[in-house]
Amino acid sequence: MDQTPRGNRLHIAIFGRRNTGKSSLINALTNQDIALVSSVPGTTTDPVFKAMEILPVGPVVIIDTAGIDDEGELGQLRVRRSLEVLNKADMVLLVIDAAAGVTEFEENIARTCRENKLPIVTVINKNDIHPVTAEQFEQTRQQLGVRTVVTSALTGQGISEVKIAIMKSAPPSWDEQAIVGDLLKPGDLAILVVPIDPAAPKGRLILPQVQTIRDILDHHAMAYVVKESELQACMLSLQKKPRIVITDSQAFQKAATETPPDVLLTSFSILFARYKGDLKTLVAGAKAIKNLRPGDKVLIAEACTHHRMEDDIGTVKIPRWLRQLAGGELDFQWSSGNRLPASLSEFKLVVHCGACMINRREMLSRIMQAQVAGVPVVNYGVCIAYVMGILKRALSPFPLLQESL
Amino acid sequence: MDQTPRGNRLHIAIFGRRNTGKSSLINALTNQDIALVSSVPGTTTDPVFKAMEILPVGPVVIIDTAGIDDEGELGQLRVRRSLEVLNKADMVLLVIDAAAGVTEFEENIARTCRENKLPIVTVINKNDIHPVTAEQFEQTRQQLGVRTVVTSALTGQGISEVKIAIMKSAPPSWDEQAIVGDLLKPGDLAILVVPIDPAAPKGRLILPQVQTIRDILDHHAMAYVVKESELQACMLSLQKKPRIVITDSQAFQKAATETPPDVLLTSFSILFARYKGDLKTLVAGAKAIKNLRPGDKVLIAEACTHHRMEDDIGTVKIPRWLRQLAGGELDFQWSSGNRLPASLSEFKLVVHCGACMINRREMLSRIMQAQVAGVPVVNYGVCIAYVMGILKRALSPFPLLQESL
Repeated sequence: MDQTPRGNRLHIAIFGRRNTGKSSLINALTNQDIALVSSVPGTTTDPVFKAMEILPVGPVVIIDTAGIDDEGELGQLRVRRSLEVLNKADMVLLVIDAAAGVTEFEENIARTCRENKLPIVTVINKNDIHPVTAEQFEQTRQQLGVRTVVTSALTGQGISEVKIAIMKSAPPSWDEQAIVGDLLKPGDLAILVVPIDPAAPKGRLILPQVQTIRDILDHHAMAYVVKESELQACMLSLQKKPRIVITDSQAFQKAATETPPDVLLTSFSILFARYKGDLKTLVAGAKAIKNLRPGDKVLIAEACTHHRMEDDIGTVKIPRWLRQLAGGELDFQWSSGNRLPASLSEFKLVVHCGACMINRREMLSRIMQAQVAGVPVVNYGVCIAYVMGILKRALSPFPLLQESL
Repeated sequence: MDQTPRGNRLHIAIFGRRNTGKSSLINALTNQDIALVSSVPGTTTDPVFKAMEILPVGPVVIIDTAGIDDEGELGQLRVRRSLEVLNKADMVLLVIDAAAGVTEFEENIARTCRENKLPIVTVINKNDIHPVTAEQFEQTRQQLGVRTVVTSALTGQGISEVKIAIMKSAPPSWDEQAIVGDLLKPGDLAILVVPIDPAAPKGRLILPQVQTIRDILDHHAMAYVVKESELQACMLSLQKKPRIVITDSQAFQKAATETPPDVLLTSFSILFARYKGDLKTLVAGAKAIKNLRPGDKVLIAEACTHHRMEDDIGTVKIPRWLRQLAGGELDFQWSSGNRLPASLSEFKLVVHCGACMINRREMLSRIMQAQVAGVPVVNYGVCIAYVMGILKRALSPFPLLQESL
């Protein structure tokens, strides 16, 4: 994740009066012990920028500010420096001690954010020590007029809700994940293998193929589009090797044979699993497939209620493959529409659709719902790649994930 | 036009009793004197297949049958041979002498066509000699139950209506015109130059670009898609020369500089003028642009009522360019929607939209309406190419049209 340029990371400034538990909250969000935690007020001094990862939000920069209500001359300097970071932040987490409540300090921060059109999430922390009443919650929410979450950084309570609130508050550009362009240098060549079968729409290409071409052009690279039958001729027509071959999964085996080993090879499905979700978590989920045993409960979740075709992927094909791998009948359940079922923890696996009708933010929050419930989650694309035995090779552009298999 | 494979030509079988004027009708449709015209019944003997062109219907094969009611043994043989050609025909023109009316013979033909699901157009000919009354017309139409047109092959009356009836009766496959695939051999490489400007839809390609890629793949060729800034790098990456470079008109000058002279070069607009209409007639229409004089009436015709943007092509840009070329104000009129104005002959030029919302058949019949009125017609794409001075080079895949300029 260190390859992520700083500019693409979501910059989250954390504000809070001394000893509200900012550092503990950062640790809880990142599962790391990087922030210095102490119960002596004012341990954190100048604003510190820390590149971190919050799963599944992705790479972030946490801007850890000094306790902004510090007294004395040094304190005033700290306050000024802390407010300067608002220019560099994409959003603000405002941490309140449940026992202390809202003061002029928090109202100032909320107003400054409003003036700067900066999204803000209020976290009422230390719920374990001072349980927050419904009344206090509602009052805080109304006083500050922003999205509010109750947490205990100590017990982990509410941490996933903070992550969801972060994703929902992040600016529109945060959603922007390149399809493949971030894997290419300007002038690089990407070969796209596009079978034309009876399912292809007449006279068109399917949207993921079009989006991939566009993404390549947007990154000043070049897209060479061929049917699988022309892949070899295409390779021979080139003076230099392509950077990557991207194939429809159907043609993966043929593409794998005809792609030199030092050329990256992946599928549209893998690229779109990353574009539309959290590839790392989905690949980890794929590993759970081999642990399925007859009788296990499996949730197949679709975001929309599409017209089911014969040999439908979600109701026929994937169940058939998973049954074969499990060596017996599985207890499938299906969900579709806006929400995943509340009781996710009873499932051994969640298999989610490709999310073509929902955005990345929504898919990430669904993936997190499964993670919070401790259930492995894959999407259709990663599941099919695993079942076909092509997942490892198809992860060639992502060596860390490839090694994790 | 001799390059058109026989299989792609619309096969029209012409039936009619002896001396109904079949041969004169063929001559009138094709503006040729190929059919042997004589007033002696039965001059035409065995069915004869003639590759011809009916403008703007396109390349056809006229199956000129023997007078099918011939008497005697030789006559019976002719009848049998004539009926066999129905298997090879896409549609039937049934010619009736206005003086003779409908007999069992015509009813047989109409019934046989119905049984074979073959479209049929009845032509009541020789209206000049025996004017057809409304009553006779209606009676004929009802007796045969098919599309009916009154003509005089001698005076030319009704000939354009026959052409329109042919286009409307032609089978669905007749509409199918390749975008560029018919100019490519399997394994050929086509470079597509696709500028990404602020007007491009976010994350997509515009439909004509997608359709062109698909058409290339459908013809077992390869599509290399690049922005204009990468065209040179793309050329250098290749072992062999591409067959053709297809560019957005915006990037034409740059593409023209960077495309070797022995590589075909055209624009999406030119390909779509051909795909959606009759390129030959539109190119002929372009030549009329230089004859425009101040005060001339020009019709700008759009098939749909789209939302007009600032600097709209039909209301702002094209009028501006044409005014400049004419050296003064022109008398513009605009039409939109289903039909062209009836009084086309008052215009010096018809400039039609790109026909993205209507099909080829509809566009061809609109082009013909202008032709019948004796008015030159161009579409936006050809007009812009002419105005930009790139039409000649952009016609490089069509040498006959290029020479005609």
